[in-house]
Amino acid sequence: MNAANESTTAADGDQVPMRAEWGTVLISSMLVMFLLLAVVSKTEAATLGSGDLALVVERANGSVQIVETTGNSALTRVEGLGDLSHASAVFSRDQRYAFVFGRDGGLSKVDMLEGQLVARVMQSGNSIGGAISQDGRLVAVSNYEPGGVKVFRTDDLTLVADIPALYGAGQHSKVIGLVDAPGRRFVFSLWDAGEIWIADFSAGDQPVISKFEDIGRNPYDALITPDGRYYIAGLFGEDGLALLDLWHPEQGVRRILPHYGKGEEKLPVYKMPHLEGWAVAGNLAFVPAVGRHEVLVIDMLTWQEAGRIAVKGQPVFVMGRPDGRQVWVNFAVPDNDSVQVIDAESLKIVNTLQPGKGVLHMEFEPRGEEVWVSVRDQDELHVYDTASFERRATLPAQKPSGIFMTARASRIGL
Amino acid sequence: MNAANESTTAADGDQVPMRAEWGTVLISSMLVMFLLLAVVSKTEAATLGSGDLALVVERANGSVQIVETTGNSALTRVEGLGDLSHASAVFSRDQRYAFVFGRDGGLSKVDMLEGQLVARVMQSGNSIGGAISQDGRLVAVSNYEPGGVKVFRTDDLTLVADIPALYGAGQHSKVIGLVDAPGRRFVFSLWDAGEIWIADFSAGDQPVISKFEDIGRNPYDALITPDGRYYIAGLFGEDGLALLDLWHPEQGVRRILPHYGKGEEKLPVYKMPHLEGWAVAGNLAFVPAVGRHEVLVIDMLTWQEAGRIAVKGQPVFVMGRPDGRQVWVNFAVPDNDSVQVIDAESLKIVNTLQPGKGVLHMEFEPRGEEVWVSVRDQDELHVYDTASFERRATLPAQKPSGIFMTARASRIGL
Repeated sequence: MNAANESTTAADGDQVPMRAEWGTVLISSMLVMFLLLAVVSKTEAATLGSGDLALVVERANGSVQIVETTGNSALTRVEGLGDLSHASAVFSRDQRYAFVFGRDGGLSKVDMLEGQLVARVMQSGNSIGGAISQDGRLVAVSNYEPGGVKVFRTDDLTLVADIPALYGAGQHSKVIGLVDAPGRRFVFSLWDAGEIWIADFSAGDQPVISKFEDIGRNPYDALITPDGRYYIAGLFGEDGLALLDLWHPEQGVRRILPHYGKGEEKLPVYKMPHLEGWAVAGNLAFVPAVGRHEVLVIDMLTWQEAGRIAVKGQPVFVMGRPDGRQVWVNFAVPDNDSVQVIDAESLKIVNTLQPGKGVLHMEFEPRGEEVWVSVRDQDELHVYDTASFERRATLPAQKPSGIFMTARASRIGL
Repeated sequence: MNAANESTTAADGDQVPMRAEWGTVLISSMLVMFLLLAVVSKTEAATLGSGDLALVVERANGSVQIVETTGNSALTRVEGLGDLSHASAVFSRDQRYAFVFGRDGGLSKVDMLEGQLVARVMQSGNSIGGAISQDGRLVAVSNYEPGGVKVFRTDDLTLVADIPALYGAGQHSKVIGLVDAPGRRFVFSLWDAGEIWIADFSAGDQPVISKFEDIGRNPYDALITPDGRYYIAGLFGEDGLALLDLWHPEQGVRRILPHYGKGEEKLPVYKMPHLEGWAVAGNLAFVPAVGRHEVLVIDMLTWQEAGRIAVKGQPVFVMGRPDGRQVWVNFAVPDNDSVQVIDAESLKIVNTLQPGKGVLHMEFEPRGEEVWVSVRDQDELHVYDTASFERRATLPAQKPSGIFMTARASRIGL
């Protein structure tokens, strides 16, 4: 308002206008005030901390919502991001920008604070996720068509490196399970080739590639532990998991949990579980079983199975509350209207919630006091208090799927 | 620039001016442009992500610097915060605001994005740190004079609760080791009383207080593990540490590491080590020994000592790189010109740096690629690459001490 007042005074001070010209000056002054107010209010809107923001994928119509988790309210919607089925996002280290990976191969850069799409490249025909480097300067995308990884500068989305996933007699493999690791590295798996690769950018923008072959048939997803040390790929073509210790890549990939997978009975699998949601509480990791109505408990010191917890359906995401005390689970059809909460100490189910049909994703607020749940078929986002399990807020969203909070910017592997 | 162009067009479009009036319109238009540019540039300055900011305490003259860790540059200085010796800071959950706890009992609220002191209360005569609640709505300060904890609303710093640390025949105890814990709780220790208290605000702004007596003589500092489960106080009046499992407060406080402390030889202690900097890597915690030139290694599964690492001097802060692979150590006089780096796997020292006299604090960037070091006697901040150990940047600062990055906002206990 100060600036607007000054402008009025300045216009009055011209001392030129006679009576007939007052109209001109008045109109000019009003325009000045109007425009300044518009800009000033934009200024006020723009001065936002970015620590409590989240991006919500609206899969059906190529838009994302930007929401804030302090008052639990919607801020704005950004459109024009293409096919967002199975989309995910990572954040710049200052948390201003989100990089959204669309299924159609589009890589979109969204300004979280201004609520604008600021850059977009169609970088392949079909992609399946991405990662941002430890220093925040590189964003990598894993592609199905053509199979490989492309790496871009985060500032202007110019291509830095193109890593075709070639194997055998020059075939391209689909790439999945792409994560960032400490030391400006990206790690990813080759579905068709049965390989894990490390692309090391520590020496500059031309990566050094390390390849691990024969890691198992058809790795379908992967995760990295929160400390960035262990990379673990799930196998679709056989039972077991492939484990790579990134502190000791020279030791190669070893197989763990030989009974983890679809097993001999060949159960129908309604939706392959996601691995990136693995919950870690103390030494225990909680893992969605494949096909079974079970959550597996793994002792991370020995990488042996430490227990199984019966749950309502086939688990999809198994997410640990940030303090490790609770593990939240959602399910494939026909149980995708429910969420179950496991006490990480007693390994008992302490609550079953029914948000509604199409619970696709859950994201905890950074210190765990609330959790956001996307309920696709109800076009809603729910916010639950994780202590009382009461619903604190309900927000409209158009077929919401993934929810990504900016606190991921400061986490390894997210 | 768009807004400025529009304003010119609008003024031109009035269609009133004759030749003699062009001067007026031109001056008005120029003023419009000038003012708009001024406001627009303010807009651009204000649109900052807050994820890569840090607050640096300049202890000698009551100021803080706000810096950013992507380009490693200084943004602004905020003055008027009083006595900042031994000062620390916590952040609002949106990361816009820092709450700075001064030694003189001043609680200052700093707008990190606008670079302004926006509120300040003198809440006691002598204080020693504070914490912010899990939901970000309460900020608590631990006081020496008069001994107790005061709790304020983060939005306007109005007093919510006053918790005098009364014990025995109505004496006040100094309060130290105040941390936040999940469930909207604060945990703190009473130096004179030898007690640990939990103030539980989960039911509202009137806390439920739980008291644990006879926890040991003169607790001097405390920490909470990164998952918010274990609260551990160091004891000045005897050897050993006091451990409280916040998942099971009904089990009471137990004593661990009976040989941790000054020991029978009563070594001279040049500076009591800080406990909040404990490094955690896998199951191992790395702890500054008291008085000895050693870092102790503790197995957190058994709470038994698992090893000792000889270091250059009496350790003060023992900080883990976020991926747990390295542990950085600074020292009391006369070795406070050095920093040593321990490999967390081999337990060997892999580097010794000499930043200069008066290394008071270290803070890792959130994903660990760089570390910031305050070098008080050189009036400098150093930024080191944690892989190559090269110094990447040197920034001037006035007698810098604590460095606090906004990523703490999303962490339990920080």
